[in-house]
Amino acid sequence: MTEDFRFWADEHQKRIENFMMRFLKEESSNSLIHEVCSHGSLNGGKRFRALLCYAIGEISKTDKLILDYIASSIEFIHAYSLIHDDLPAMDNDDLRRGKPTCHIKFNEAQAILAGDGLQSLAFHILSLPSFLIDDQKKLKLINSLSNTIGINGMVKGQSLDIENTLKIGEIKGLEKLQELKTGLLFNFIGSATYLVSDNPSEIINIKITNLCSLLGKVYQITDDILDYESNDKVLGKTSGKDRKDNKLTYVSLLGINEAKKINSKYFDDIKEIINSISGNTIFLNELILKIYQRVH
Amino acid sequence: MTEDFRFWADEHQKRIENFMMRFLKEESSNSLIHEVCSHGSLNGGKRFRALLCYAIGEISKTDKLILDYIASSIEFIHAYSLIHDDLPAMDNDDLRRGKPTCHIKFNEAQAILAGDGLQSLAFHILSLPSFLIDDQKKLKLINSLSNTIGINGMVKGQSLDIENTLKIGEIKGLEKLQELKTGLLFNFIGSATYLVSDNPSEIINIKITNLCSLLGKVYQITDDILDYESNDKVLGKTSGKDRKDNKLTYVSLLGINEAKKINSKYFDDIKEIINSISGNTIFLNELILKIYQRVH
Repeated sequence: MTEDFRFWADEHQKRIENFMMRFLKEESSNSLIHEVCSHGSLNGGKRFRALLCYAIGEISKTDKLILDYIASSIEFIHAYSLIHDDLPAMDNDDLRRGKPTCHIKFNEAQAILAGDGLQSLAFHILSLPSFLIDDQKKLKLINSLSNTIGINGMVKGQSLDIENTLKIGEIKGLEKLQELKTGLLFNFIGSATYLVSDNPSEIINIKITNLCSLLGKVYQITDDILDYESNDKVLGKTSGKDRKDNKLTYVSLLGINEAKKINSKYFDDIKEIINSISGNTIFLNELILKIYQRVH
Repeated sequence: MTEDFRFWADEHQKRIENFMMRFLKEESSNSLIHEVCSHGSLNGGKRFRALLCYAIGEISKTDKLILDYIASSIEFIHAYSLIHDDLPAMDNDDLRRGKPTCHIKFNEAQAILAGDGLQSLAFHILSLPSFLIDDQKKLKLINSLSNTIGINGMVKGQSLDIENTLKIGEIKGLEKLQELKTGLLFNFIGSATYLVSDNPSEIINIKITNLCSLLGKVYQITDDILDYESNDKVLGKTSGKDRKDNKLTYVSLLGINEAKKINSKYFDDIKEIINSISGNTIFLNELILKIYQRVH
């Protein structure tokens, strides 16, 4: 990792934290539900999704005051999905980023409500008058995000994952499930960030969308590998849970070596796409490397 | 109840059911999550909120093809909130409208996900190109709805309700809580329906908003009275739960007689507002009477 990237990532991590905090803390910050929402969304996450927005924005020099809205709405959606995923009825996780999950620190009811409220907040942010893009584009974003995370998207993927009806060898089924659960939100990051750029080019748009789609896969396969190889302390959450829960993952379906091989192939495909894009792809390049090589 | 009203209510109940079904069943209807969402939202509800949209729309003769979108998004939000409220960690209800609740018929995880997905669906509907109002108005609706149901609105009210920290005599606290939990969505129905009318008049808008605000109170107090006086079979859900859970309600705070007196006063205030509105208020008048006099 270069010094330049480290500085850029730090700066933008702080930027998005401040932006998210503003929405959560501005009003009636003394209520319990705000506390639960803060715990679940301002908890030292890596902000890969927000950084991906800003890194893509660097290519077309998109106004950061605009990217803030997209990045924060995606991070709030991501936070809501983690809070609900961690619930006892779902993945039953006690730890997230090395801290107690919302239902452990508070209780299940407040955790459910915090997730619900953060989802509303994400749509609220995209509808704000202070978000300075065309009304038509705002509606496109809301339309696409609600589809991405809804009953034909993320929620459907999570529902299939909980059902856990896949059998060994059903790699296509797993790919479809992961595409719904994780991939579509990465696709949204690409298309949304490109939609608000000043000089959108259809070719770059397609490249960015393909790149984000591959990155979603890399993110998920890396997650599966980490769950298999890591321990709680490094991971900041309960490791080996997939095996314990008999969940089918890329590792359990393909074996650890084959999973790593596929992951490496997807990563090479991403690099090829990046190399074909003109514009400032330095930060995007390093961010993707960081996602691929992460240890937690 | 007049024959005319019965016919009108039946017709519009069917209308909204069909509209909601279209969104839920059109795509990939063979998945479990669609089944859970259908069970939780197309389950013979009374559709008071949708009927309220159409009844207000009659005053200014608003296009029903437009009202369908508002009414269905509100009904999906209402359904999501009921599915989550019924969860074991929240109100722990096994029955809803005489049928097993989502987490009983399916499981907790699928119930949480169905609620999440229905929330997204509500915002999706308001962002659709086929919803034929100005983009600016659509964004106003999305902005207002996300605020109404979010961490400064419905979710906050529910969080306070679950905390259950009110003491006997804190009628102001209970009013605030109920305003957040139930009232704001009624206010939204009024302002949203009026926003899309062809000839919005500021005076009627204020009257309608006041009326909806009072109706929210009447709805909640009637709920409390029914929980106190009714039995499971008539109510279609577990009765007497508030007492069992030591929940403070209008009845436990004021006694049954005083609660009825206040409810009757609010109802008279509503009638006064209706009498001051010119236009077709026949159906609105009868709908409100039905809400006030309902036995379940």
